[in-house]
Amino acid sequence: MRIGVAGLGNVAQGLLTLLEENHGQIIAQCGQPIEVAAVASRSRREVDLGGAEFSHDVAALATRNDVDVIVELMGGEGAALELVKSALNHGKSVVTANKAILAAHGDALFDLAAARGVALGIEASVAGGIPVIAALTRSLAANQIERVTGIINGTCNFILSAMSDQGAGFEDALSKAQQLGFAEADPTFDMGGIDAAHKLAILAALAFGVPFDRNAVFVEGITDVTPDDITYARELGYCIKLLGITRRTAEGIEMRVHPALVPLGAMLASVNGVMNAVQINNNATGSLLFHGPGAGGRATASSVLADLVSIARGDRPIRLANSTVTATMLPMAAVESAAYLRIPVVDQPGVFARIATILSDHGISIEGAIQRERAIADRKVPIVVVTQPVPEAVMTRAVAALQALPAVVDRVRRIRVEHAAA
Amino acid sequence: MRIGVAGLGNVAQGLLTLLEENHGQIIAQCGQPIEVAAVASRSRREVDLGGAEFSHDVAALATRNDVDVIVELMGGEGAALELVKSALNHGKSVVTANKAILAAHGDALFDLAAARGVALGIEASVAGGIPVIAALTRSLAANQIERVTGIINGTCNFILSAMSDQGAGFEDALSKAQQLGFAEADPTFDMGGIDAAHKLAILAALAFGVPFDRNAVFVEGITDVTPDDITYARELGYCIKLLGITRRTAEGIEMRVHPALVPLGAMLASVNGVMNAVQINNNATGSLLFHGPGAGGRATASSVLADLVSIARGDRPIRLANSTVTATMLPMAAVESAAYLRIPVVDQPGVFARIATILSDHGISIEGAIQRERAIADRKVPIVVVTQPVPEAVMTRAVAALQALPAVVDRVRRIRVEHAAA
Repeated sequence: MRIGVAGLGNVAQGLLTLLEENHGQIIAQCGQPIEVAAVASRSRREVDLGGAEFSHDVAALATRNDVDVIVELMGGEGAALELVKSALNHGKSVVTANKAILAAHGDALFDLAAARGVALGIEASVAGGIPVIAALTRSLAANQIERVTGIINGTCNFILSAMSDQGAGFEDALSKAQQLGFAEADPTFDMGGIDAAHKLAILAALAFGVPFDRNAVFVEGITDVTPDDITYARELGYCIKLLGITRRTAEGIEMRVHPALVPLGAMLASVNGVMNAVQINNNATGSLLFHGPGAGGRATASSVLADLVSIARGDRPIRLANSTVTATMLPMAAVESAAYLRIPVVDQPGVFARIATILSDHGISIEGAIQRERAIADRKVPIVVVTQPVPEAVMTRAVAALQALPAVVDRVRRIRVEHAAA
Repeated sequence: MRIGVAGLGNVAQGLLTLLEENHGQIIAQCGQPIEVAAVASRSRREVDLGGAEFSHDVAALATRNDVDVIVELMGGEGAALELVKSALNHGKSVVTANKAILAAHGDALFDLAAARGVALGIEASVAGGIPVIAALTRSLAANQIERVTGIINGTCNFILSAMSDQGAGFEDALSKAQQLGFAEADPTFDMGGIDAAHKLAILAALAFGVPFDRNAVFVEGITDVTPDDITYARELGYCIKLLGITRRTAEGIEMRVHPALVPLGAMLASVNGVMNAVQINNNATGSLLFHGPGAGGRATASSVLADLVSIARGDRPIRLANSTVTATMLPMAAVESAAYLRIPVVDQPGVFARIATILSDHGISIEGAIQRERAIADRKVPIVVVTQPVPEAVMTRAVAALQALPAVVDRVRRIRVEHAAA
């Protein structure tokens, strides 16, 4: 099988290395070698391409007669999307790590692949080296998925882990991540939760047959999480993770990315540094968890290689069996979750009672609370509570009411709590 | 696709239920339904078989013209092995959960399946509902596996978890497991590590291409682990788990099942109760971990269903690409590991120094130790040490030398330490 590789970044370099290192395994498993016929990239880097032909003309890869499968590792949307479409239209199978184009155009691309009778391999698009796409679309294909909960952005997890382990502030932790090469110079795509939202849109489409639609995901990033929040959360038995969650309820499909308190005993609470993990709940096995490196050239290339091996062997392409189902999306206002509330108050007698009354008036029960001893009267201290689950809209109204209390001297901070994380 | 099911126990019942509950998903994913044409079992239980024909004649399933695929869920070896062989010989694909026959006859069965051009699906044979066979044989098929480390016996993990959480003794924890239905009336197969050894033999064959050979696995069970060991291990930063480990070294392939100290921060340390987990280290992704239910009718049936869906779709059967490789097995005496030593001594001045000297004379460094304050002179107290890794044979000689010390008044207890568990 001959492949054409578009892009020459970390993942492409990892793939070229693995194809060489694992040559023997590949032949043994596929019954044939996987040869790189051509590499195309807008910039030529100093990388050993073996015998592969190099070109700056990425688009031309799709029509080469000496290429059976196109591997799209350019990233970005414009040229990458055109290449993938063109390759599929020319009857070539495609393997891509490009979450952005999948999260926006996945349905059209899978329809095109099916119409041309070729494969579209997307294992590398979510969670790097963890074979979670294979789990959803092959091993669990016939199971009813109930919920997918993931730590799917390694940069955010690294920062939250550093804040938790070293008590670092957000800015310091981000600087450290940037120094170690774990965060981009412009970190907004990761920190703002956008990268995780793209991946979650893909997981939701595969799990529930909803359209690939990154715009349907509620997104809140981690920039507002403070070391104090992490300390209070720990005191209450939780850590804080950026989670992507998609869930099927009787009322519709939830799709959301936001920081969340996770019980310390949960497996997801043990996922540290740049590692990723995806938990899949379904009607046959209950909860399964898949853990591993969510980024890195070799790890992501491993997922590209898995798709290539599957195509070379002649496996059937994955199917989006339910993609015609018009599932209802659940509006965020209707999503039920518990909340951690950090309420900065001027400490006066009766302030905790007033807060508890407001929550109670909104039908919200308190599960746990931290109220520091009063050191100096009229000093600014936070009251921290963890609530029982209520619909988002109810919590929003309650927070507005708390915010209006005269004793509340700063912004009330709300972080959702996910007890279902296992 | 029409299947014949042999056996009518928990897994078979789970499969019949899932085939009904997930009927829509199955058709969507396979393009056809999976129908149960016949069920055969030596005993007829009160189970709704839908329209399937029931028979007591298990062997006759293999030759039925109305059955495309045989699902062997009888367990045991004689009749089950005959059925699987006969079905493959008659050109029928087989799906089995039977670790015992695979761990002894896997090579012959896969050779037979390949010769007849049919599939042998074995996902359900290891780690219940966790798709770890698919990971090894599909997603990671072209990677060089370095090590597989598993918590692959839920009964032992439940008992060790109960001993750890509740300070229960082994016998009490076992009784509780039996009351809850997690342990057999005769628990020796689980407690002695035999069940885990069968599963490890399968994992080793798939990871390294060594012959399926349960007798090649070094086995030590959990019956000698005491609540004291668990307490001392925790004090030193570890928990105790029954691990199955297979590893490729320059000198040969390790295959071993034994209790082991696992660092408390490792993901494997968070695997509690009847849950299983398998960690796969390889040259592309580093460490991956798969976590989920290792037993139970529905969970194990999920893995059977995954194999059936793959066959119904027309995927290529998994290949034992390297099964002709004659890999050297590393004798246990040459395996390197660190050790926890609990040394019961009569507390006399200088006894710790004598122990340290013996270890040092054998080239063994001490990494951590617990030496209680002397309460009463000549009282029996344990000295506990954790060592650096040395070959098994060296440790065995050192333990014999320690045992010969006059101050050592009872058996020295040794438990291996696995720092590589992640």
